[in-house]
Amino acid sequence: MNKPHVTLTPLGGLGEIGMNCMALETPDSLVLIDCGLMFPDDYLLGVDVVIPCLDFIIERQDKLKGIVLTHGHEDHIGALPWLMKQVRAPLFSSEFTLALVRRKLEEHGLADTLDLRPVKGRDKVSLGEFTFHFFRVCHSIIEGFGLGIETPVGRIFHTGDFKIDRNPMDGHATDLEGIRQFASQGVKLLFSDSTNVERDGFALTEREIKASLNDIVKKAKGRILVTLFSSHIQRIQEIFDLAREYGRKVAISGKSIASNIEIARELGHLHFSQDNYCELEDLPGLDDSKVVLILTGSQGEPLSALSRLSRGEHRQLNVHKGDTVIMSSRFIPGNTKAITKVINDLYRLGAEVLYKKVQAIHASGHAHKEELRIMLETVSPKFFIPVHGEYRHLLKHADLAQECGVAPERTIILEDGHPITFFKDSIRLEETIRAESLLVDGKGVGDVGQTVIKERQILGGEGLVIVVLVVDPGRGGIVLGPQILSKGFIFEQHLSHVLEDAKEIVLDVFENIDPRDTRKLKERIRSSLRRFFKKLLGRDPVVVPLVIDISKDEK
Amino acid sequence: MNKPHVTLTPLGGLGEIGMNCMALETPDSLVLIDCGLMFPDDYLLGVDVVIPCLDFIIERQDKLKGIVLTHGHEDHIGALPWLMKQVRAPLFSSEFTLALVRRKLEEHGLADTLDLRPVKGRDKVSLGEFTFHFFRVCHSIIEGFGLGIETPVGRIFHTGDFKIDRNPMDGHATDLEGIRQFASQGVKLLFSDSTNVERDGFALTEREIKASLNDIVKKAKGRILVTLFSSHIQRIQEIFDLAREYGRKVAISGKSIASNIEIARELGHLHFSQDNYCELEDLPGLDDSKVVLILTGSQGEPLSALSRLSRGEHRQLNVHKGDTVIMSSRFIPGNTKAITKVINDLYRLGAEVLYKKVQAIHASGHAHKEELRIMLETVSPKFFIPVHGEYRHLLKHADLAQECGVAPERTIILEDGHPITFFKDSIRLEETIRAESLLVDGKGVGDVGQTVIKERQILGGEGLVIVVLVVDPGRGGIVLGPQILSKGFIFEQHLSHVLEDAKEIVLDVFENIDPRDTRKLKERIRSSLRRFFKKLLGRDPVVVPLVIDISKDEK
Repeated sequence: MNKPHVTLTPLGGLGEIGMNCMALETPDSLVLIDCGLMFPDDYLLGVDVVIPCLDFIIERQDKLKGIVLTHGHEDHIGALPWLMKQVRAPLFSSEFTLALVRRKLEEHGLADTLDLRPVKGRDKVSLGEFTFHFFRVCHSIIEGFGLGIETPVGRIFHTGDFKIDRNPMDGHATDLEGIRQFASQGVKLLFSDSTNVERDGFALTEREIKASLNDIVKKAKGRILVTLFSSHIQRIQEIFDLAREYGRKVAISGKSIASNIEIARELGHLHFSQDNYCELEDLPGLDDSKVVLILTGSQGEPLSALSRLSRGEHRQLNVHKGDTVIMSSRFIPGNTKAITKVINDLYRLGAEVLYKKVQAIHASGHAHKEELRIMLETVSPKFFIPVHGEYRHLLKHADLAQECGVAPERTIILEDGHPITFFKDSIRLEETIRAESLLVDGKGVGDVGQTVIKERQILGGEGLVIVVLVVDPGRGGIVLGPQILSKGFIFEQHLSHVLEDAKEIVLDVFENIDPRDTRKLKERIRSSLRRFFKKLLGRDPVVVPLVIDISKDEK
Repeated sequence: MNKPHVTLTPLGGLGEIGMNCMALETPDSLVLIDCGLMFPDDYLLGVDVVIPCLDFIIERQDKLKGIVLTHGHEDHIGALPWLMKQVRAPLFSSEFTLALVRRKLEEHGLADTLDLRPVKGRDKVSLGEFTFHFFRVCHSIIEGFGLGIETPVGRIFHTGDFKIDRNPMDGHATDLEGIRQFASQGVKLLFSDSTNVERDGFALTEREIKASLNDIVKKAKGRILVTLFSSHIQRIQEIFDLAREYGRKVAISGKSIASNIEIARELGHLHFSQDNYCELEDLPGLDDSKVVLILTGSQGEPLSALSRLSRGEHRQLNVHKGDTVIMSSRFIPGNTKAITKVINDLYRLGAEVLYKKVQAIHASGHAHKEELRIMLETVSPKFFIPVHGEYRHLLKHADLAQECGVAPERTIILEDGHPITFFKDSIRLEETIRAESLLVDGKGVGDVGQTVIKERQILGGEGLVIVVLVVDPGRGGIVLGPQILSKGFIFEQHLSHVLEDAKEIVLDVFENIDPRDTRKLKERIRSSLRRFFKKLLGRDPVVVPLVIDISKDEK
């Protein structure tokens, strides 16, 4: 191990879309690229977010030289609060990304210890044995970076999340020229975003989206209500510009959008004049044709501004005939039902609702196949490791890399927890490390796992029945009970005769078992009742038998 | 009310996709069209299926002349078991649909009472004051019908679920000519399927799908595994035909597909020779290039053949490199995660997986916009009521009807439980009736409602904590306890110190409250513990305090 080498350890994002996180390591230096979260699948009842297992970083924090963030989306910065509770290290990214990081860590009471180091496109930063070059990339958030990395064993390029807008609006291009220059000295390894490898051609461009939005605003006679991802500052700028062009004022409802707009404006990434803007309170004085509203709620989140509006529960606003609602975002699959409920309710209130399915008003921020090809050809790496995708995305991206001339034996599919070491002229796959994701529920991290989730699924799916029996074997048996109560089982009014029969069953069990053997008594009560409920109702609730022997004086 | 009139009462399917069900009524006669179920949203924990409230029919069963079924999909026949437990009436539909109905009712032990009356295209059946004409329609199941209905106030046409295949394969056309003839005497009212009104143009045709499948089978060197909706007999026929053409034998795994194939073959709707077929057991003797497998599992159902294969848990089969898996179906939104997990696992095992997103291997069975236009123009109704859709679909279909010349005041949007009465020359909207859908959990119908579901959501999301305290105020207080146990809360190893603190809190509460006031004691224990868990863990489990006063001799 004396030969120079770099070990790359993916901690998240390779095998799933979300919680992107990767460690770069030499014997002396460790740098973390991104530290994101993932939103839980529906079956993970009660889980708020999912984060990578960060033990690997925490155990090596002595050599942690810095954390480099490609951009400010939650799947790249969202797990930082859990990491920054345990380690100290400088954070490198764009001003805008770091402003989002600061806000997030402030919410977790961690702002004091922050060491934020803003960088700009084409900046260069040395972190231990690594030197990072930052290149602007176009994505569905402003100020994203791809990373050129000089290492002791050669150059690496990490795309971050990106697309290649062929006809970009001011300042939102991917810096292909910079990347080409960096690559001209030879790139050993490319990591590239696999999210959209299954989509042919090129992603729609923001110019195309703006043209669609322009058509809508031009035709609309009444108010225009727009919802979008709250960090999509470029799109928000387009909306301000269109509003100005058509003599409308923009008002805002929803905390996350208002806060992002404030940050972006302070940093000079969003431009509008006070004439172009209006407080919610001042809307009643304006004609509907003079108004654009920007709202939270693109995913049908029940407490968001748009959802409250759709239910008629917004304090300051209501929806009425003539309103045009533009949902300028994609529907994340798990949210489809919630979103379509909002759409139907808005139609019931008389609005017209436009969404991606019916009009081209959202563009993905991730490169489609032809854009991925351009990146592969621009960087022309010796080795290729696809990142940011489920297994099939990684596999298809590896195929694409081979089409673009990377040798099959040098396109490598890794998943979370599979480290790989690069030497000057060889590679070595390392033993896998523990990289299970952690479930965050409330303030707890990792105190909820598959066994607890399984219990929740049964409780949630079938409900609960508690049986209480107080016994005193010396005084001849049952002192009190059986009392039976239930939660989430069936309606009260259907319950009473069921529970009467259940009590008889418990009494039968009691008659045939030594009352001092509470363990056996409990087991038998549980199994008899489960059989009874299955037969009668076709259900299998959690049965909790409590047999309390008061002759045993244990408190 | 002496004037002839017909009242139409939608019981399901107007306001949601699923559980289609509509009553047609005169003073003497009642006919039910379809009686379908809907699969529950994810938030309806533990609910198996959702069915319409059928009280309306049950209360009027004396005049129920028959139940007419347009086709055999679950959203049209799935609620029959709950209806046929309570009413007797003849069931009219195609042979194939009725065979599916028979199988379903047999499973519910209701086959003895069945009165099944098969009809064919262009048949005519009188039911009380109504005369039904059956017209073949093309859909994603064979033997579907649209219904021409003569009533005392004029003609009605109900499309059922349909598409208009412009270039249909043998026997699978929508009988536009028959419908045109029926309509030539004037149609007062059209009910038409709104599912795909948001999709422009025409649905893909089966011929196009077969061409795609042909390309895949032609190129494939290894085995071909196909999964699809198990009732899509036409597509299954295409697969048998392609297998024969390329010298492959077809084997089948999965109960529902095997059973449907048997029914369809017996009725002469599916044709293949014994040479074309092979038992699973005989596969090992065949070269991979000679095999096609048809499997259940198009929605990633965990126990389906394809899911078991993807996890390496199928008793007779395994997936290996060279296999091509064709998912010839759509991804129903709530199932996306389960389906993509299956796809990723299949790729891990070395298979190639093709699905709608990457190849045109599935066609919707519902008419797109231009096909809906053809239906509107063919029937040319005086009144139009869109059916089978969420609110926005109904609204957009009404707009389309107006484009096609139906007067705006005669395009009517109804939702479930909104009856409308047609007279010879007027209409009247009736008082709405109770049409809440019923949640079916196990053998229970309607014994689970929103309050129980809410309890389940909390139990499932946060878990459960039970506190037991046995008291005897006469003997000076606590006899036993507090004992605290939990389910679905947090890991055991994290639990003990939390529960020690919780016990202290319970003892504190006890010291400050009269032990005879068990109600107050329970309330205070619950609120104190909830506050404690929220503060410490950020969670809010269901807290069940059991205070047992053994001085009260209640059994």
